[in-house]
Amino acid sequence: MEKETAAVARNRKVVLRGYIDRAPREDDMELVDGGDVALRVPEGAAAAGPAVLVKNLYLSCDPYMRSRMRDFQGSYIPPFKPGSPIEGFGVGRVVDSTHPGFSAGDFVSGMTGWEDYSLITKPEQLRKIQQSDIPLSYHLGLLGMPGFTAYVGFYEICSPKKGEFVFVSAASGAVGQIVGQLAKLHGCYVVGSAGTNQKEKFGFDAAFNYKEEPDLAAALKRYFPEGIDIYFENVGGPILDAVLLNMRVHGRIAVCGMVSQHGVTAPAGIHNLFSLISKRIDMKGFIQSDYLHLFPQFVDDITKHYRDGKIVYVEDMSVGLESGPAAFVGLFSGKNVGKQVVRVSQD
Amino acid sequence: MEKETAAVARNRKVVLRGYIDRAPREDDMELVDGGDVALRVPEGAAAAGPAVLVKNLYLSCDPYMRSRMRDFQGSYIPPFKPGSPIEGFGVGRVVDSTHPGFSAGDFVSGMTGWEDYSLITKPEQLRKIQQSDIPLSYHLGLLGMPGFTAYVGFYEICSPKKGEFVFVSAASGAVGQIVGQLAKLHGCYVVGSAGTNQKEKFGFDAAFNYKEEPDLAAALKRYFPEGIDIYFENVGGPILDAVLLNMRVHGRIAVCGMVSQHGVTAPAGIHNLFSLISKRIDMKGFIQSDYLHLFPQFVDDITKHYRDGKIVYVEDMSVGLESGPAAFVGLFSGKNVGKQVVRVSQD
Repeated sequence: MEKETAAVARNRKVVLRGYIDRAPREDDMELVDGGDVALRVPEGAAAAGPAVLVKNLYLSCDPYMRSRMRDFQGSYIPPFKPGSPIEGFGVGRVVDSTHPGFSAGDFVSGMTGWEDYSLITKPEQLRKIQQSDIPLSYHLGLLGMPGFTAYVGFYEICSPKKGEFVFVSAASGAVGQIVGQLAKLHGCYVVGSAGTNQKEKFGFDAAFNYKEEPDLAAALKRYFPEGIDIYFENVGGPILDAVLLNMRVHGRIAVCGMVSQHGVTAPAGIHNLFSLISKRIDMKGFIQSDYLHLFPQFVDDITKHYRDGKIVYVEDMSVGLESGPAAFVGLFSGKNVGKQVVRVSQD
Repeated sequence: MEKETAAVARNRKVVLRGYIDRAPREDDMELVDGGDVALRVPEGAAAAGPAVLVKNLYLSCDPYMRSRMRDFQGSYIPPFKPGSPIEGFGVGRVVDSTHPGFSAGDFVSGMTGWEDYSLITKPEQLRKIQQSDIPLSYHLGLLGMPGFTAYVGFYEICSPKKGEFVFVSAASGAVGQIVGQLAKLHGCYVVGSAGTNQKEKFGFDAAFNYKEEPDLAAALKRYFPEGIDIYFENVGGPILDAVLLNMRVHGRIAVCGMVSQHGVTAPAGIHNLFSLISKRIDMKGFIQSDYLHLFPQFVDDITKHYRDGKIVYVEDMSVGLESGPAAFVGLFSGKNVGKQVVRVSQD
């Protein structure tokens, strides 16, 4: 007996070619033809448990993904598999589902693959998107992992007080732009640095291009004559060293990322940690997934701020699955202005 | 009219010759003849407010004093004055006093000068020594600033839990030996490192000489196969970098000192701070003087532990005011085993 034949579509994939131990390059990834994919959950997959077939619409480029390109099992997240699609956060439309929580036509966000269609066998990791007045891709940034990282890092790690002096690096990136705006809403004085001159309208008190400052410590002294209470660390390297010289007593450093160091085999040395003592600084690393109990509150708060016009959000949208590798690589040279996403399809 | 003539004594001083910007050497300090000193509070001084004339018995050599040898006003403590005696903690006997709280014959501890006799014009900074069964010099270590640093750092900064894995550097130093013993009393597993092979009997679970370990990260992996929960940082430099690779998730680093970096114009770079993120480490600098409200509790607790035989305390005693410069310089090459003090006089 022949089964009914499902509709099929061509599936393209962006795969990792092999592990690397340096800054990622475009040719570390490759667009390959994945053949035809039947547009329904295969019977074998369904037998193993509920699954959801998703058409990927938007894919997220995030710096942490670099750490999955190394052959290193000791991290909090396992490495990618060479020859398999890059994995990352994405927004998609459900094509078929054997999970009772999802139906064809639903929009979802969650961990997916860099391909046209992904079969999600752990649908409990997907979130159904409810807010219809917010652009779908914003669920990869403002209302996704980067926005939540900003929210948790600022409120849970920085212990902010009204009137404090806040410095944010990578301030036009996915996380930095939101941290800076939350700090402004909290009544702080906010300065951001970025690797471009393009000043977006995030409402910070000041912003500068670190590439144009030969003496970063002197630049920070200009922007913060009274010193820095809170540093939201996204970059590592020389900016951190300059910040350490400009912190105030009892300052806090939330260590969110060190994107300048991601591609570097021998990371830059930090020389000014003695400031931790003389300034009694609390320097704390964090990962957003330790705080998932706060996610519903985050979605409520940020959605309200956005609808009230109190938060703006800037994306750097790259078009076409094939543009993914270049978009991702650009993160590490500070090319993106705004959250970097890849649009695979509009429907 | 002639006044009654007070008894006089010869006063010797160890003075700083000039500011330095490198590791201290013996000849940066000089023993000079301070002439005769009248053995009572001078009338002029008494008119300006209560004062206490102290005969110095024991002087403390502490790494933080190095920072007062630089011409740098921005620290939490001002620099020494070239040509004037080195200042530091000391224990002495009151010779004369115009302060109602002190009488001739009292033993006191507090900030004094490296000289035979010091006129203390801020006697509110002196503490009268009460415990007669504890050696006087212990008030410079076990019951003084180093002991209090250990107490505050361990209980207030490290958030210790029973059964946790604790690593202490400079473990035979003034602070390290006490931290390690408090951690043992708290039910932790404790390993210490030092720059000597001489193993004192502090009851740690293990100890090693870092100078004999070509690969510090591998050494720590051997001593802590499951990783380090708490690192009490006294040294900075390569040991900190090795520790960062061996920390456990949610580990804590109390940054108390970076003695290996004190004499270095360009401090060693720390390369592994990305571990702060992946391990969610809280790295916090502190200064004991922020916690002085806990001092009475500290004295009670430590005195009881000492009398109960639960804490031992090792001193490295150098004899004679003239031996002070060499004793101080030895701190920075890890020569001392135990708290370094200088005995000026026994009575």
